[in-house]
Amino acid sequence: MSLNSFGHLFRVTTWGESHGPALGATVDGCPPGVEIREEDLQVWLDKRRPGQNKHTTQRREPDAVEILSGVFEGRSTGTPIQLMIRNTDQRSKDYGDIAETFRPGHADIAYHLKYGLRDYRGGGRSSARETAARVAAGGVARAALAALLPDLKITGYMVQMGEKRIDRDRLDMAEIERNDFWCPDPQAAGEWADYLDALRKDHNSVGAMIEVTASGVPAGLGAPVYGKLDTDLAAAMMSINAVKGVEIGEGMAAAALTGRDNADEIFMGENGPEYGSNHAGGVLGGISSGQDVVVRFAVKPTSSILSPRRSIKLDGSATEVVTKGRHDPCVGIRAVPVAEAMMACVLLDHYLLDRGQTGGVRGRIG
Amino acid sequence: MSLNSFGHLFRVTTWGESHGPALGATVDGCPPGVEIREEDLQVWLDKRRPGQNKHTTQRREPDAVEILSGVFEGRSTGTPIQLMIRNTDQRSKDYGDIAETFRPGHADIAYHLKYGLRDYRGGGRSSARETAARVAAGGVARAALAALLPDLKITGYMVQMGEKRIDRDRLDMAEIERNDFWCPDPQAAGEWADYLDALRKDHNSVGAMIEVTASGVPAGLGAPVYGKLDTDLAAAMMSINAVKGVEIGEGMAAAALTGRDNADEIFMGENGPEYGSNHAGGVLGGISSGQDVVVRFAVKPTSSILSPRRSIKLDGSATEVVTKGRHDPCVGIRAVPVAEAMMACVLLDHYLLDRGQTGGVRGRIG
Amino acid sequence: MSLNSFGHLFRVTTWGESHGPALGATVDGCPPGVEIREEDLQVWLDKRRPGQNKHTTQRREPDAVEILSGVFEGRSTGTPIQLMIRNTDQRSKDYGDIAETFRPGHADIAYHLKYGLRDYRGGGRSSARETAARVAAGGVARAALAALLPDLKITGYMVQMGEKRIDRDRLDMAEIERNDFWCPDPQAAGEWADYLDALRKDHNSVGAMIEVTASGVPAGLGAPVYGKLDTDLAAAMMSINAVKGVEIGEGMAAAALTGRDNADEIFMGENGPEYGSNHAGGVLGGISSGQDVVVRFAVKPTSSILSPRRSIKLDGSATEVVTKGRHDPCVGIRAVPVAEAMMACVLLDHYLLDRGQTGGVRGRIG
Amino acid sequence: MSLNSFGHLFRVTTWGESHGPALGATVDGCPPGVEIREEDLQVWLDKRRPGQNKHTTQRREPDAVEILSGVFEGRSTGTPIQLMIRNTDQRSKDYGDIAETFRPGHADIAYHLKYGLRDYRGGGRSSARETAARVAAGGVARAALAALLPDLKITGYMVQMGEKRIDRDRLDMAEIERNDFWCPDPQAAGEWADYLDALRKDHNSVGAMIEVTASGVPAGLGAPVYGKLDTDLAAAMMSINAVKGVEIGEGMAAAALTGRDNADEIFMGENGPEYGSNHAGGVLGGISSGQDVVVRFAVKPTSSILSPRRSIKLDGSATEVVTKGRHDPCVGIRAVPVAEAMMACVLLDHYLLDRGQTGGVRGRIG
Repeated sequence: MSLNSFGHLFRVTTWGESHGPALGATVDGCPPGVEIREEDLQVWLDKRRPGQNKHTTQRREPDAVEILSGVFEGRSTGTPIQLMIRNTDQRSKDYGDIAETFRPGHADIAYHLKYGLRDYRGGGRSSARETAARVAAGGVARAALAALLPDLKITGYMVQMGEKRIDRDRLDMAEIERNDFWCPDPQAAGEWADYLDALRKDHNSVGAMIEVTASGVPAGLGAPVYGKLDTDLAAAMMSINAVKGVEIGEGMAAAALTGRDNADEIFMGENGPEYGSNHAGGVLGGISSGQDVVVRFAVKPTSSILSPRRSIKLDGSATEVVTKGRHDPCVGIRAVPVAEAMMACVLLDHYLLDRGQTGGVRGRIG
Repeated sequence: MSLNSFGHLFRVTTWGESHGPALGATVDGCPPGVEIREEDLQVWLDKRRPGQNKHTTQRREPDAVEILSGVFEGRSTGTPIQLMIRNTDQRSKDYGDIAETFRPGHADIAYHLKYGLRDYRGGGRSSARETAARVAAGGVARAALAALLPDLKITGYMVQMGEKRIDRDRLDMAEIERNDFWCPDPQAAGEWADYLDALRKDHNSVGAMIEVTASGVPAGLGAPVYGKLDTDLAAAMMSINAVKGVEIGEGMAAAALTGRDNADEIFMGENGPEYGSNHAGGVLGGISSGQDVVVRFAVKPTSSILSPRRSIKLDGSATEVVTKGRHDPCVGIRAVPVAEAMMACVLLDHYLLDRGQTGGVRGRIG
Repeated sequence: MSLNSFGHLFRVTTWGESHGPALGATVDGCPPGVEIREEDLQVWLDKRRPGQNKHTTQRREPDAVEILSGVFEGRSTGTPIQLMIRNTDQRSKDYGDIAETFRPGHADIAYHLKYGLRDYRGGGRSSARETAARVAAGGVARAALAALLPDLKITGYMVQMGEKRIDRDRLDMAEIERNDFWCPDPQAAGEWADYLDALRKDHNSVGAMIEVTASGVPAGLGAPVYGKLDTDLAAAMMSINAVKGVEIGEGMAAAALTGRDNADEIFMGENGPEYGSNHAGGVLGGISSGQDVVVRFAVKPTSSILSPRRSIKLDGSATEVVTKGRHDPCVGIRAVPVAEAMMACVLLDHYLLDRGQTGGVRGRIG
Repeated sequence: MSLNSFGHLFRVTTWGESHGPALGATVDGCPPGVEIREEDLQVWLDKRRPGQNKHTTQRREPDAVEILSGVFEGRSTGTPIQLMIRNTDQRSKDYGDIAETFRPGHADIAYHLKYGLRDYRGGGRSSARETAARVAAGGVARAALAALLPDLKITGYMVQMGEKRIDRDRLDMAEIERNDFWCPDPQAAGEWADYLDALRKDHNSVGAMIEVTASGVPAGLGAPVYGKLDTDLAAAMMSINAVKGVEIGEGMAAAALTGRDNADEIFMGENGPEYGSNHAGGVLGGISSGQDVVVRFAVKPTSSILSPRRSIKLDGSATEVVTKGRHDPCVGIRAVPVAEAMMACVLLDHYLLDRGQTGGVRGRIG
């Protein structure tokens, strides 16, 4: 508890359960004067929304976001922005049989052991549905960043599904919006489609790896030692449901490199320092270097599958669990817009730490 | 700034530069009544201390820790514990020539762009020397955990150096203390020794991968959504110098798994739930499940190498950097005790969040 | 910004403007298993609600609170509780003429100078209407405290209006609910009624002093030096709109006492230590002593009055302001339930710091 | 615990006990480039130092501050500044007889009930000696403010001792440094000297009231609702040992005012808004208005007196306590420099929140 927030100055607290009346995000610390409209936030929510193609859950919710506070005449006032999304398509009866059963790979058992009770419907608070609130908050962060850092560009995409990785020689960012997987490699996207079809028919699911890059990040964001930019990015991504690993730049592969190979040599360009490579992923000593910030993370396969798995009940008796309900066979797909939102929140947060809570706005009289 | 702390209730703020008079950790939130002696903390610092074998920097410092506050008659009082380590072997002249040069892969340029000035001697605040303070703080956390969770056991070890991984079939935890690399596979340790010798002679360095496990962790530590146990562990490890990736349980490999393979089936054991596997790494929905907590992270190769690398100076002119000074060819080796310390701090922090700041102590009268 | 929250473990973030669609409180850190029903929260909101007698603003709002998350089958789950109150009686046109004028004594000018824009309708975020959200959050805290500390009793009442104080010899707590002023001295209540009538007719307003006591507070809540129980109480009360001073125990009068007079002598009672007096107000060294916690605070007179006052406009030109709208002639009256709510939040927060975030709840299997 | 810190971006954690080896402050968040020298900090410590005249404790400590980190070549680097003050004059034997006795008015009993043990020597952590660390940290804040807000001026002085108040018609700020009481009214200072002499001879002590003003505070510092400038000031002052009440501007007297009297009318001056009065004390809606910030607080009489007071021992038996040791008969005197330090810390903190953690510094290359 007291722990459903992230961010230092741009602070987001998400709230709500999968099958409660609503969920949302309390966004405290948006600088004043930012143009924020519900329809602009809705764009990002629509990107994440389920039920848009056969590869995501068939739960169909409009996920319509309402701004309840903090925006006046279309602009942020510097006070908390409350974003609410009503839950509308709640087929709670799908979950009645798991009230007393712990689904393997889910948070059911951990919540029970900690809290003694839980909202079991759809996973309650541990549902991936919580990420809708993050996407809404990320929309606010993007709106602020668009005003404060117009050259910033955040791009998320999937680079691996199961054992099948994209071929970086075929990388084409324009492809990302052209397939169901936010995949920058059209050939990989095609293979994934077939693979996922087969998996779903086999009542199985699969993991994925996502990459998010931010270009146009000014040097100097972050701080030494603990409140580092990379620390906060790692925490932000690891906090997304089902994420099991996070990398910056070279990531886990850095273990295999030598110092000569890993060094990003520095040159003087026309507009400041330039680098010969980006093994660092844009962060040096916890502070942005001016290079692209590159983060990657792995999402485990959806734990809710139609194949039986052994588990126990509340009374300790053995059982088999087949998780019904409408679930994504690859929950990683919808993690892409979530990760973009988290990147936006972290970058805005560190920008405001660096430049101040109002982002430089001052009022005048006379 | 304001960002040199970690932890919620057990809060550690490290301070100090590599070549200043001293460095240390301000530990706020240690429960009262814990037996803490300087010599017990020293054990952990000695484990991390450089100059102990030819594979680590030849900088020789006693790293003697002094307790300046918070401990009375050998026991913690519940007030802040100040831990100070004097810097004694400061060969700052090694660093004079980097005052105006930015070393590739180092934080020099990022610090300069953010702060406009920096203590360049030995990397100043960004030096791995800062981790001595973490190890001291971790010693306090271990002392508290020894009293509060006597069954808890934290073990760190190296699982990869360069491209050479350990063979898990040869895993023998008793081997960890028998070689220079905290390596549980004696054959790998032998290969690494030769490999590292050759690298050092070649003026090169190499990365590594570390694993830390904690057994005896009670179920129910952590919290949903953001202040998750795995979020905090990821942040803790990523905050260590030179770390570029963090994994929990199956980690990045989870991307390649299917849901059927990834499910940790649950059974009822004599003392509570047991699990058929531990892909989750002991954390479900951000909360400990009672299984071993397993974290892995990659350390990049030491950026300070004797091979020339291209860079720029403060005035923008081009230069070549050969980093003199006494540096670890594989900084990952000394990251092992640091990671154990971070694990101890995170676990104690979440234990105290769960049980309260005094850990259950109460005073009585009469 | 990022600053609309209070509390350490029981953390409340209020949001919303006076004339926006809604306002509310995001409550993070309520322990699990607490019975919370909307109708129980409503009791406290009704106590604060305007329009109930001629001495408070005639703005009539039902102030109906909705629980949007964190409660399942009537009990808290340990996840964030979102409390929303729709704004219904918005006569925004009353405020059109202050869009470009700064009302003396109001936050208008400070908001403008900081943010460059503001929601001027009804004071926007700086409206006393924000305190409805605090009362709702306080209702959650009370529900938790009722379960965790059944002997705790929080009582707020008015002890001074204008220059007229209550006579402590006539103190009768049963009177508090019998008059329009939460006044424990019926004779004073009668005098205040006449006084306030006259003031209102004179287009004037007046200040007040409120006292809140908590009995049944266990010893040991709080912490040394900064996160003291009295520090947090002072901050909590000072954060209420229009409050200009806060006292604990003897308060400002302590300046006039000698050490011999001020000492609260200690005796051993049947159930632990007892004290000969309570100059300390129940807090010693930042930690509760087991005595009644006693807090007092002053509320300035309502700044919105129908008497003209000189001010300036956005363009710097001089003007006179007569604040229309429906305002309390003594805003201190409605501060009583707000202060009780703040006391409840602070006490629960420190209880949870002491005992842990779940308040001692544990789940079991088998 | 975890609660020995204050400040948002300029964050100070004090540590240390009265009779331990040392005490100090960990200052995280000082902007870079600020000139900070030990001798400049020492000026403020000398102002607070005991033993300088017959009206304060005869404990004589040099209170020499050492800077252990965060300053390089005379300027802050933006990393944590560790300030250490060695304890040298420890007459711990004075305290041996209170190891098992609870002194009335002291934190002894509350600490014992919370922690089960305590460093009883000189009050340990609850000693007013802790405020030396605040004064040192305040010196850092002043150095930063001198660079960032050169027109800012902070002035603390005593306005009441016992029942004797200063006469504001005789107010002369130049007098403050000319007497032993930081008193701006020389006649009152003379009366206080005689009064305090008599009290000390009578083995008694007395309370006091302190006022601190800050002129040159820019408008726009603070934030709505909870992280208000006045909330933070109230918490800062209430956190000082022995403080029982805090006021902003009109303070507790606001309860007696009418709205017409209390309104601070606004006029347009040459350099921006001006005000006809300052009942608000420079803060409107939690945000600075540009007027002088005025804070007042009451310090209770020293609890350590040579007159016997009834109490109990650890075993519950009755006893009488006569507190030996060397104590201030009016601890309020030395609270003046402490309060100035707290004011400096709070103002710098809100300035940095407003303008960013580096205070506007940027590094350049080429």
